Amino acid sequence: MMKDILDRPEAVSVEQALRILDELGPAVTPAEVLPIEEAYGRVLSSDLLSPEDLPGFNRSTMDGYAVHSADTFGASETMPVYLKVRGEVRMGKRPDFSLKRSEAAAIPTGGMLPDGADAVVMVEHTNRVSTEMIEVMKTVAPNENVILAGEDVRKGEVVLRRGRRLRPQDVAALAGVGVVEVEVHRRPLVAVISTGDEVVPAEGAVSAGEVRDMNSYNLSGLVLRCGGIPVRKGIVRDHPDQLRKALAESLQEAEMVLLTGGSSVGTEDHTARVMEELGPPGILFHGAGIKPGKPLIAAASGGIPLFGLPGHPAAVTVCFETFVEPVLRRISGERGKAYLPSRRTVKAFFGRSLHSSPGREDHIRVSLRKRDEVLWAVPVLGKSGLIRTLVEADGVVVIPPNRTGLYEGEEVEVRLFNE
Amino acid sequence: MMKDILDRPEAVSVEQALRILDELGPAVTPAEVLPIEEAYGRVLSSDLLSPEDLPGFNRSTMDGYAVHSADTFGASETMPVYLKVRGEVRMGKRPDFSLKRSEAAAIPTGGMLPDGADAVVMVEHTNRVSTEMIEVMKTVAPNENVILAGEDVRKGEVVLRRGRRLRPQDVAALAGVGVVEVEVHRRPLVAVISTGDEVVPAEGAVSAGEVRDMNSYNLSGLVLRCGGIPVRKGIVRDHPDQLRKALAESLQEAEMVLLTGGSSVGTEDHTARVMEELGPPGILFHGAGIKPGKPLIAAASGGIPLFGLPGHPAAVTVCFETFVEPVLRRISGERGKAYLPSRRTVKAFFGRSLHSSPGREDHIRVSLRKRDEVLWAVPVLGKSGLIRTLVEADGVVVIPPNRTGLYEGEEVEVRLFNE
Repeated sequence: MMKDILDRPEAVSVEQALRILDELGPAVTPAEVLPIEEAYGRVLSSDLLSPEDLPGFNRSTMDGYAVHSADTFGASETMPVYLKVRGEVRMGKRPDFSLKRSEAAAIPTGGMLPDGADAVVMVEHTNRVSTEMIEVMKTVAPNENVILAGEDVRKGEVVLRRGRRLRPQDVAALAGVGVVEVEVHRRPLVAVISTGDEVVPAEGAVSAGEVRDMNSYNLSGLVLRCGGIPVRKGIVRDHPDQLRKALAESLQEAEMVLLTGGSSVGTEDHTARVMEELGPPGILFHGAGIKPGKPLIAAASGGIPLFGLPGHPAAVTVCFETFVEPVLRRISGERGKAYLPSRRTVKAFFGRSLHSSPGREDHIRVSLRKRDEVLWAVPVLGKSGLIRTLVEADGVVVIPPNRTGLYEGEEVEVRLFNE
Repeated sequence: MMKDILDRPEAVSVEQALRILDELGPAVTPAEVLPIEEAYGRVLSSDLLSPEDLPGFNRSTMDGYAVHSADTFGASETMPVYLKVRGEVRMGKRPDFSLKRSEAAAIPTGGMLPDGADAVVMVEHTNRVSTEMIEVMKTVAPNENVILAGEDVRKGEVVLRRGRRLRPQDVAALAGVGVVEVEVHRRPLVAVISTGDEVVPAEGAVSAGEVRDMNSYNLSGLVLRCGGIPVRKGIVRDHPDQLRKALAESLQEAEMVLLTGGSSVGTEDHTARVMEELGPPGILFHGAGIKPGKPLIAAASGGIPLFGLPGHPAAVTVCFETFVEPVLRRISGERGKAYLPSRRTVKAFFGRSLHSSPGREDHIRVSLRKRDEVLWAVPVLGKSGLIRTLVEADGVVVIPPNRTGLYEGEEVEVRLFNE
């Protein structure tokens, strides 16, 4: 950990913080087997090889006639080719005949090509001359209008790689090759602790001087949204011993620990002290160049990451989305394309000129409004301790550390909050 | 419904289709009461008024001293003001004293201001001269470094409006004002039917000519992703009577019906016929200017929308995201800002020149790749009947109806598939 000249830990930049977290290599959750209906959004824990060909047979992609393509060579509107109708392919059935040369069989889209056929002529390019005869007015190439057996997925081939978070179509592919159970990473358990002597539960009475616990609800939702399971550890009094006990318990139960708290200087200090004791490696960084969220503490005990998040609601959201989510996704076993965006974004014009201190990322909460077909991102101002600013905001605009503000009317990219 | 000169229904444009669906005004699901821990992602069914002030007392936002602001007027580094230390505010407790003029009280961030105090001087701007005396080196204004009682949320005020899909911070706000149960719309039930004489279940053996049901897995996942509950109605043989029965049953059980099927012309025809019978209003449109997905059928029976989706996996995904999702969100009671994007998007360079037929929206599946720090959207080519094209794709690039293609290297916006 870097120290400043007064031996206080120095805030790292967002980039440095992400690099430190990236090198953490946290323990990934073990695998479990699930029916595919329950595997949506889960992460594959091993490569999935197809047990069979898809499709299992040569399949027509058109309504028409199955033919020997060679029989159609040279066929045209003015010079049709005549073929004998050998029969009709029934949907879902193996044809009980095979085609000889100069024969054709009626076939529906999705039907199985009879032996001997290697292409399909679309019905539009044929004429039924009699019950026994068609004329073909177009040349078809071998395999034209056909999906070959195994053309979609070949037996033994990797359908999906480990680390893939299963989307609806991925689960459909598993069904398509007859895989109805799948090995996925267990959802990571994330301990959520609220600290503070003034914090009381959401339910029940509240006395003067007390505030209800909001942060654990915000954090639990953020954890759920990333596929984790929040383990609510309740509210912990603001004393090192109680904190130490709650963290030790959480390290036994969970794969990640999130603590919010405690915005006073004293609280932050003893949170840091207790987290340092829990190492190795202990504290990874204390303080990050981000607003809101500067007092953030990141630590690890063995393979388990711990985050001490500032107590302001907006800081909780910004720090989670920026620092916690990427780590949680790695614990989940996810190995996606890191360059794909994790949030919905939209371009808008910034609603008013705003100053920002250089040297840190400033995450400005904004509300989007449409006026005369133009989208405006209007900053939701107010102390970062107010939950209202987060409720009114649709997302954030990030002012990078090298800028000192934004101008009214400047085009910005808004990162929307997840639902 | 518009007809062409052969009395066949004419395909509507995507824009027309969306307008028709928008005018549908489907029935919205009724309300249910849930604990807030279970309400993440659910849609509020009535405006939520705060039962109390948040915070319930004047609260310090800094570590420092609570003061009468008037006592600090004119205070500066060179001309400090001296105040008597009356006591210390303990976190979470109502102070058992009040401040007289020329008195101050130590207060932590989040602490309750004693009666008589109207501002907080940050500890950095004070000096403890003795146990009983501080010097204040800065003037503070009334309410400086204070969140006033009710400043975040006032009792009786609307915290969240009906139609809001609850994000983590919205649930946190409910907790903050002591609301631990909330009225939300029930998740809509969506019947999912696969049709086709060749379609067999994902589990078990498959014979030549048969294919396993993939579409119901794709659709179920898409429904879940939008907050709906899929009701799997299984596979229905390709006969009007069986179809009629399955649809009638589904209309009893569900708030929306999705049917995939049946890519042959005959199947499409009797699906349309049965859906028309189920009116009023019956068929809303048959055929849409979109690829893949042209044979799409949209209908309604009473307030319940029905969609007949083409059988190709890619068409299922594209039609769902384009046409079904907005209707499903309205059934869920959602009343968001319609101009916010529903998907993650990313700019990329198009990977190869590609022709597209004008007059329809062409949804090209693409895989994103990063080469030398530049993002490329490479079309995943292949018949739309192949599930592989969907599995390999990260999202789609939409070629609008007035374009005849895209050039290699052209900048495009990729709409990512949801996880």
